[in-house]
Amino acid sequence: MPPDSSIQLSIVKVHDEEADHSLDSLAMEEPLEIRLGHGPADNRRIKNVSVTMRTPGNDAELAVGFLFTEGIVKQPDDILSAEHCFIACAENKENVIQVELRPGIAPKLDTAERNFYTTSSCGVCGKGSINAIRTVSAYDSRDIENQVSADMLYLLPAILQKHQEVFADTGGLHASALFDKEGELILVREDVGRHNALDKLIGAALNGRLLPLSHHILLLSGRASFELVQKAAMAGINIIAAVGAPSSLAVQLAEEFKITLVGFLRGKRFNIYTQPQRILLSKYEDSY
Amino acid sequence: MPPDSSIQLSIVKVHDEEADHSLDSLAMEEPLEIRLGHGPADNRRIKNVSVTMRTPGNDAELAVGFLFTEGIVKQPDDILSAEHCFIACAENKENVIQVELRPGIAPKLDTAERNFYTTSSCGVCGKGSINAIRTVSAYDSRDIENQVSADMLYLLPAILQKHQEVFADTGGLHASALFDKEGELILVREDVGRHNALDKLIGAALNGRLLPLSHHILLLSGRASFELVQKAAMAGINIIAAVGAPSSLAVQLAEEFKITLVGFLRGKRFNIYTQPQRILLSKYEDSY
Repeated sequence: MPPDSSIQLSIVKVHDEEADHSLDSLAMEEPLEIRLGHGPADNRRIKNVSVTMRTPGNDAELAVGFLFTEGIVKQPDDILSAEHCFIACAENKENVIQVELRPGIAPKLDTAERNFYTTSSCGVCGKGSINAIRTVSAYDSRDIENQVSADMLYLLPAILQKHQEVFADTGGLHASALFDKEGELILVREDVGRHNALDKLIGAALNGRLLPLSHHILLLSGRASFELVQKAAMAGINIIAAVGAPSSLAVQLAEEFKITLVGFLRGKRFNIYTQPQRILLSKYEDSY
Repeated sequence: MPPDSSIQLSIVKVHDEEADHSLDSLAMEEPLEIRLGHGPADNRRIKNVSVTMRTPGNDAELAVGFLFTEGIVKQPDDILSAEHCFIACAENKENVIQVELRPGIAPKLDTAERNFYTTSSCGVCGKGSINAIRTVSAYDSRDIENQVSADMLYLLPAILQKHQEVFADTGGLHASALFDKEGELILVREDVGRHNALDKLIGAALNGRLLPLSHHILLLSGRASFELVQKAAMAGINIIAAVGAPSSLAVQLAEEFKITLVGFLRGKRFNIYTQPQRILLSKYEDSY
């Protein structure tokens, strides 16, 4: 992680009735504005797409991942560049990133595909949101064979923890990690926002031409929300394992997309919420 | 909590190499659209203000709290009603809430006060965001005396845990709790989104005419982000204790607003990040 992912601060540590001044590390949180340059070469337009509170580092991946998982940009080839952009004032120079699309590529900004909630036919019932995602998702990996053994799943949180440097330091970051079928760690990304950690990861995978991630396992350090499953679905992921609990709509969306959703992966235990056939138990092959 | 805050689902529980079918409770997550009715009686306008992924329950409080902590509505008297609104389709009837302002009350929707990030002079450096909050905050509680003993702080997480019914059930909810200076629990609200839990709490406090909350303690079940400290500041809160870690910008904002920010409150330990003079240690009164 870049050095500005955490800062040192003087704090008071209290234990029982004792108080000591001490140095502590904090996870950095700063706004990032994502701007999108598009249109013909002679009539370029700049659109402010989003401002997210994020941990500095891997900003270009975050921007690219966000544009892709939100359905605004369809494929890596649509993107010409993603760079920090020095505007406005001296203090924000690292907090603006501008993504340039190739001339002729139109971003999906104002279509029904953009705002899942507000523009789909029934935006405010889960069904509308899920239908909208089905429309924009670039990959359909529901029939692709991908399996992982329970024994390998048990190992993944410890591997992630070893690589979660800033979390170890600050206790303040969510992580997303991508493993291959052999349990090899491919990518880890951290952020104060769990959706940012996953956008960074998917942005990195997109830059590395790894999509669709249909023969991988996504590990989430915390809970699994609707939004995280939605982003994973956009990247063609079909096995998600979360250390924390899933929400009702996360399970509903995973079922709809035939994604295997595992929760409470701790020690030698986990729960399977959807599509259990992708999880192999060596002793009881037919246990489901 | 209302019965629809969690649902029962059939899942597969795996332990070591054993798999069993079992019933499990999940935290509900559904979109909520917040609509705002305003304008003169003969020319009423409806504005869709926000869609948030939330746990059903206390929706009116969530809407009122959101409008207040975002600076869109200034005081409880501005609000005529906040009710579920049955539109569009049969499936979303519980997922839309409409807040009616009194005729003559104009919501702050399009001013510089609204979007901290995009419209303030330096929206994308923390400073701009902090300045914007200073402008809109209805209460200045920085000089108000409020103190709590370390011994009382140690007790609060256990009291919260006892009242966090849905979390105990699902493991999937964030909580915000409000205590008075005697350590008495005043309010608890839970949600899949930590910002929603706090908006529900502040909405309930607003309805109960409890603001400013300058003689209370806010307890957060997880981490303290910029957004949570911002919402607390809007309600006049000056002591925040979080079970998890704070972010850099949360600490910066707390310092700016002279809010006491405590983190990692676990067992008989915690860290004080800002304004330690509000935390009393019986043995060492002058320890800071």
